[in-house]
Amino acid sequence: MISKNTIKRLNSLSQKKYRAKENLFLVEGDKMVSELAGSDIVVKELYITSDFEFRDTKSNFHAEQIHSIERSDLKKISQLKTPQNSLAVCQILSQKELPDKLDEPLSVYSDGIQDPGNLGTIIRLCDWFGIKQLFCSKDTVDLYSPKVIQASMGSFMRLNVYETDLKALKELTEVSDTTIYGAFMDGANIYTESLAGKSILVVGNEGNGIREASKLLIDKKISIPNFSAGNSKAESLNVSMATAILCSEFKRR
Amino acid sequence: MISKNTIKRLNSLSQKKYRAKENLFLVEGDKMVSELAGSDIVVKELYITSDFEFRDTKSNFHAEQIHSIERSDLKKISQLKTPQNSLAVCQILSQKELPDKLDEPLSVYSDGIQDPGNLGTIIRLCDWFGIKQLFCSKDTVDLYSPKVIQASMGSFMRLNVYETDLKALKELTEVSDTTIYGAFMDGANIYTESLAGKSILVVGNEGNGIREASKLLIDKKISIPNFSAGNSKAESLNVSMATAILCSEFKRR
Repeated sequence: MISKNTIKRLNSLSQKKYRAKENLFLVEGDKMVSELAGSDIVVKELYITSDFEFRDTKSNFHAEQIHSIERSDLKKISQLKTPQNSLAVCQILSQKELPDKLDEPLSVYSDGIQDPGNLGTIIRLCDWFGIKQLFCSKDTVDLYSPKVIQASMGSFMRLNVYETDLKALKELTEVSDTTIYGAFMDGANIYTESLAGKSILVVGNEGNGIREASKLLIDKKISIPNFSAGNSKAESLNVSMATAILCSEFKRR
Repeated sequence: MISKNTIKRLNSLSQKKYRAKENLFLVEGDKMVSELAGSDIVVKELYITSDFEFRDTKSNFHAEQIHSIERSDLKKISQLKTPQNSLAVCQILSQKELPDKLDEPLSVYSDGIQDPGNLGTIIRLCDWFGIKQLFCSKDTVDLYSPKVIQASMGSFMRLNVYETDLKALKELTEVSDTTIYGAFMDGANIYTESLAGKSILVVGNEGNGIREASKLLIDKKISIPNFSAGNSKAESLNVSMATAILCSEFKRR
């Protein structure tokens, strides 16, 4: 049995203001929850039904509290349409300070991405391409939103996410021999650019793209060629699709 | 004023069985609705508030009925969380027969994609890359689902979508000098494959990938290299992201 207070408290964590207040966030999906065991994430409370399978053993799963609950109770605390067998309440990592120098060959900067599915998918994509750093503007959707965590498919555990404005990052690139590329509709053809050296790829908000103030800080505008033809044609690509194609171009060279 | 019956009838079109029965589907979003004017889609009913702006003129928008309604009424018939100023009820195109021969340089085949957001995003992507043909297995999510239409951002109007099993398509490739490529976890590195000649790219279901029966019909397995390292690492890419990267590789050569 879970108390009404617990249900209320856990459900409140779907909202950013309560996550910030409690310094906690939710992880769901059995695969992702079981992966927490091997990560740096501190699990404060773990709620599981009898069907949950630990990846390793239960004793190797470090959680401050483990509660065995009924499926009917899990439904009450889950944010998913079809809850699986577990829900973990985890501690939000403290805000990372920017490194002194950029060493990574490629990083991504989100200039105001708003859709949690897009941010989560980009985190998953970064993980696939071995990109270890994701920089986010302050107005980017909250990393710890349940939908971001869900769409990341666990990749949020393997990525260093920094909140920073692009200006601070620009100063860092200047002492780190790193080029800031920005995804635009009217940039240089990505297929024929040389893309040598350390790079940061800036991708913009779904509706507005990269904001004016950020444009001034970008070293090189790049584009994916539009092969659509005719009077009426495709006007844009979804930001996560464009990020996928651009990251692939950086990594394939 | 819209009658209760009309509200009920229009809302029922969010379900496939009613779409099939009425042979109608919904298009929302002012930009997409205004683009219908230049397309082959037959608009049976158009519902607009006084804030709707026609791309051209009202008289150039061919709809059998145009109803001016209040915003409060639009909310009752809309499938969107934040309805704009229009909703169009359109006629489903009759099922296209497969062409006699494949002439296109690149087409995509969906082997059971289930998520409407993924299919819609892939349609948008095909449009961007000038891909004119999308083939779908019978168990692929319905093209006319409101979420597919929404995610396609209007690109569904510019694509020929065929429902077919892969076997029938395979026969067609054999008389058309076309290679069937399949996206797998263990295929040849897409970055170093030659990818010459006419091609069909097969992408699989979100959870299960390309089904066993389909695997036998594929000429060449291809993969996007995984740059993720370590014990715990990214295990897959979202199907629409993978399709984006693969289509980009075919088009860049």
